[in-house]
Amino acid sequence: MLSFILTVKRFLEALVKAFKNPMFLSLFTTLFLIILSGTLFYTKKEGWGVIDAIYFCVVSLIPTGVNTNLSPVTSLGKIFTMLYLVVGTGVMFITLLTLGKTMINTKALEERKTEGQKKLNEYREKK
Amino acid sequence: MLSFILTVKRFLEALVKAFKNPMFLSLFTTLFLIILSGTLFYTKKEGWGVIDAIYFCVVSLIPTGVNTNLSPVTSLGKIFTMLYLVVGTGVMFITLLTLGKTMINTKALEERKTEGQKKLNEYREKK
Amino acid sequence: MLSFILTVKRFLEALVKAFKNPMFLSLFTTLFLIILSGTLFYTKKEGWGVIDAIYFCVVSLIPTGVNTNLSPVTSLGKIFTMLYLVVGTGVMFITLLTLGKTMINTKALEERKTEGQKKLNEYREKK
Amino acid sequence: MLSFILTVKRFLEALVKAFKNPMFLSLFTTLFLIILSGTLFYTKKEGWGVIDAIYFCVVSLIPTGVNTNLSPVTSLGKIFTMLYLVVGTGVMFITLLTLGKTMINTKALEERKTEGQKKLNEYREKK
Ligand SMILES: [K+]
Ligand SMILES: [K+]
Repeated sequence: MLSFILTVKRFLEALVKAFKNPMFLSLFTTLFLIILSGTLFYTKKEGWGVIDAIYFCVVSLIPTGVNTNLSPVTSLGKIFTMLYLVVGTGVMFITLLTLGKTMINTKALEERKTEGQKKLNEYREKK
Repeated sequence: MLSFILTVKRFLEALVKAFKNPMFLSLFTTLFLIILSGTLFYTKKEGWGVIDAIYFCVVSLIPTGVNTNLSPVTSLGKIFTMLYLVVGTGVMFITLLTLGKTMINTKALEERKTEGQKKLNEYREKK
Repeated sequence: MLSFILTVKRFLEALVKAFKNPMFLSLFTTLFLIILSGTLFYTKKEGWGVIDAIYFCVVSLIPTGVNTNLSPVTSLGKIFTMLYLVVGTGVMFITLLTLGKTMINTKALEERKTEGQKKLNEYREKK
Repeated sequence: MLSFILTVKRFLEALVKAFKNPMFLSLFTTLFLIILSGTLFYTKKEGWGVIDAIYFCVVSLIPTGVNTNLSPVTSLGKIFTMLYLVVGTGVMFITLLTLGKTMINTKALEERKTEGQKKLNEYREKK
């Protein structure tokens, strides 16, 4: 459970840090609009529930092995899905990579801080 | 609905901008030929409909969590699919990334324009 | 059909060109060994046919929307699959990207050649 | 079988080499915490077995064509999966790419060593 809280904490820190970057804010807004368009389409044309539609829209743009068990059946739905993926996958990929890098850096900074403090303590003990 | 139109607008702007880049045009033509070859193969050898074949050909090349519910069943189809993916995934990935970057830049430019106008207005008000 | 032959031609050209690069040869050998190990495992432990096993091994390493309809069912198979993906996905991704870039360059070079010839012709006609 | 042992050997070498890099250690710890959180969630809330949960957590973060035949059914599970993918995919992707590069370099170094030895032998024979 602790590991879960730690991950969430680091994730939130990374998110806050990432949002200070104006590029990331632009990235996030674009992505939000894309997912919103998709959710509206799939709820209306494919008749899915809201959570299912959001779930499909988010997972579809991520390079993942997850199988949502949701699949557009109408021809219009298939054509929309192609456009949706072409528009969104690139933006999502850049967002995920930026977020991933920020998380690792947050981690690396933390470790450097801990190490720095250790060395400081050692130095003090020597004195 | 507005968000949908906005996304489509930005996407079309990004597309027009991307097409001015000769590299992207080359990218797009290569991709078009690859998808055309795939569509011809799957309609003839696996007996799929045209929309289904195009849908499978496009989605297959994209790193996505979407499950098309289409799957080649013949041995020839499986061998072709492997070659198709090896040939096309790299080209598609570069295309998607280029498109994603162009979309974010289009967005960033818009925001800079709006910000610039705001500052201009503030400056005018001060005067 | 012509488009298919053109794609295959360009792909083969890109492959020949890529193989001249010693880095790519190393990449290809590594990948070959990885896929061979996987094929041996899945034919023996999961009891799949050879084509099915190769198909699964190749498609698994590619970031794609294709669903192979094959899935390891034994616990050993699942553990092996995790290791297989961790070892192979990175190498495959670099290979696909290198191949994709080479294909686009081959295309771009061709176009430049055609353009160069056009300009030469125009120049000759002027004279 | 030999090819399998060779791949495992090179993989372990690459892993040892990668771990000497402090950046990679940070990467690996972050990833470990993420997968642990996921495993805890899916065993408790979706009621999956431990191996199935780990299998799903690892495969989900990898850009792969594998279909795990596992899929969260509860709404909470779907919401968690979205967050899990957004947090983890970027970190996993950087890890896989780093590992892939290290494996190729290990391979390239080996070959250079063998080539160097060959040239040395040729040189000795000439003398
Ligand atoms: K996938
Ligand atoms: K999939």
